[in-house]
Amino acid sequence: MSLAEQRTENDEQSAVSVIGLGQMGTRLAQAFLAAGYATTVWNRSPAKADALVAQGAVRAATAAAAVTAGPLVVVCLPDYATVHGVLGPVAAELRGRTLVNLTSGTPEEAADAADRAAGHGAAYLDGAAMSGTRLVGRPEALFVLSGSRAAFDTHQAVLRSLGNTVYLGADPALAPVYDTALFGLAWGALAGFYHSVALTRAAGVDPSAFAGVAAAHMQFVTSLMTEHARQAQEGSFPDDDGTVEVHRAAMEHLAHTGTAQGVGTEVPALFRSLLEQAAADGHGASGIASVIETIAKGARKD
Amino acid sequence: MSLAEQRTENDEQSAVSVIGLGQMGTRLAQAFLAAGYATTVWNRSPAKADALVAQGAVRAATAAAAVTAGPLVVVCLPDYATVHGVLGPVAAELRGRTLVNLTSGTPEEAADAADRAAGHGAAYLDGAAMSGTRLVGRPEALFVLSGSRAAFDTHQAVLRSLGNTVYLGADPALAPVYDTALFGLAWGALAGFYHSVALTRAAGVDPSAFAGVAAAHMQFVTSLMTEHARQAQEGSFPDDDGTVEVHRAAMEHLAHTGTAQGVGTEVPALFRSLLEQAAADGHGASGIASVIETIAKGARKD
Repeated sequence: MSLAEQRTENDEQSAVSVIGLGQMGTRLAQAFLAAGYATTVWNRSPAKADALVAQGAVRAATAAAAVTAGPLVVVCLPDYATVHGVLGPVAAELRGRTLVNLTSGTPEEAADAADRAAGHGAAYLDGAAMSGTRLVGRPEALFVLSGSRAAFDTHQAVLRSLGNTVYLGADPALAPVYDTALFGLAWGALAGFYHSVALTRAAGVDPSAFAGVAAAHMQFVTSLMTEHARQAQEGSFPDDDGTVEVHRAAMEHLAHTGTAQGVGTEVPALFRSLLEQAAADGHGASGIASVIETIAKGARKD
Repeated sequence: MSLAEQRTENDEQSAVSVIGLGQMGTRLAQAFLAAGYATTVWNRSPAKADALVAQGAVRAATAAAAVTAGPLVVVCLPDYATVHGVLGPVAAELRGRTLVNLTSGTPEEAADAADRAAGHGAAYLDGAAMSGTRLVGRPEALFVLSGSRAAFDTHQAVLRSLGNTVYLGADPALAPVYDTALFGLAWGALAGFYHSVALTRAAGVDPSAFAGVAAAHMQFVTSLMTEHARQAQEGSFPDDDGTVEVHRAAMEHLAHTGTAQGVGTEVPALFRSLLEQAAADGHGASGIASVIETIAKGARKD
């Protein structure tokens, strides 16, 4: 099937509208266009649509025209207040359609937006783009979505144009919960990496040389995450990857090395504090994933 | 070629001895045996060799016999003092051989061990096993090695039986430097993960469900490391992945969510502190990898 034929077929079944053409909204629309879907776009300041129209998008004159252009409306705006400001006046037009909201917000905002959509007779999916704008449209771009399973199933093929779209569950608050947690996960890895780059660079190692070995190591670290999550699920922390006490002792060495190299000490100080708290909680002889329980408890020594 | 033939051929060229049969040393010997190399083993308490002998290893009666069994001597002992205690009396036998020391230690200890080996006329490689004991012998088990390039090249095939053996450079201190830095990197990722598991579990998400999505996200985070190392190398921090100020604002949300869920706040507090320090250092409008410079500076606000 030629691209033109495919586009015609997709047109009939799966037109998609994108409302909000900031950096992310523009990339979303480009990904739908690249996958051959009829794509209607709208932005409050219309000039932002110009480049997309040149790439084959249809410009909607009003937000209402964008909503009524097809069964699937993807919204990506600065915040939820803006979403309600744009969609409130055209709420009647949402009936029977699916609203996918990729605006960043809180679990409470997602739950509220889902309630409003239900009130308008629309199916709702809340979502978050996890991999920045550059990868959008590539299979490794992670999008998390939660809310109506039926809506996800119906529009799965279109949404997959954006990347690796993962359905989390029926609770619309799940997407912002994961969004926040994955942000924290990324920052943990980056903080560890930045500290390690500072440490090795002080010892004369090129950051890019270190990053090459770090990337290989991250595969192992990711496999530990899978294993440690299983341990948390079972509430049992065997010591196959070392005990809290053994890691606490090794952490002294990391802190000492950082001090000797004259780099900031906050990063290893956090790890040491977590391990000391876990030991104080009675997990000294347990595997390191028992730190999860110490964090979950919310107790602080200081 | 049959395994028996291969073993005979390997015997002639590349017998290997393993000194120190703790958990790691035992796994090293098993990996050499599995790859078909004639493997001689020695441990101070001989009973630790029994299982390996049953698997095809040759038991050396003395440390001297282990050293003289072949051209390649792999040592894995509790600390460098033990290494010197075992090898000191048999130093004369080391001449012309290669010593691979996988004992954990400091850069200074590695440099000292390399000097001693040179004094005995032995080639020296310092190394560290980065992926625990379970993966040893599989291609994803990371080993970092530094020291004699000629020794690495000569014994590369035998050493590759252990896993992904990466040569870092001629300075023997590089292996312990990377060892320490990769430990810190792993802990950053794990601390971020443990916090995120505590956060999502408090919101009703199964740890294993979260880990599945986290693993997909880690591929993206690892790609950021490669890019951010390049930025550090060039000393230029563009804002493609968000500025320090944008991330600082998002971090408030992570901290707030953690507080609302009642989990420990230390992990996001570190990230916030790093971003605040970077902003105070004048990096507010720079990309987040500028945090490397703030850590490298070693300054602390408090």
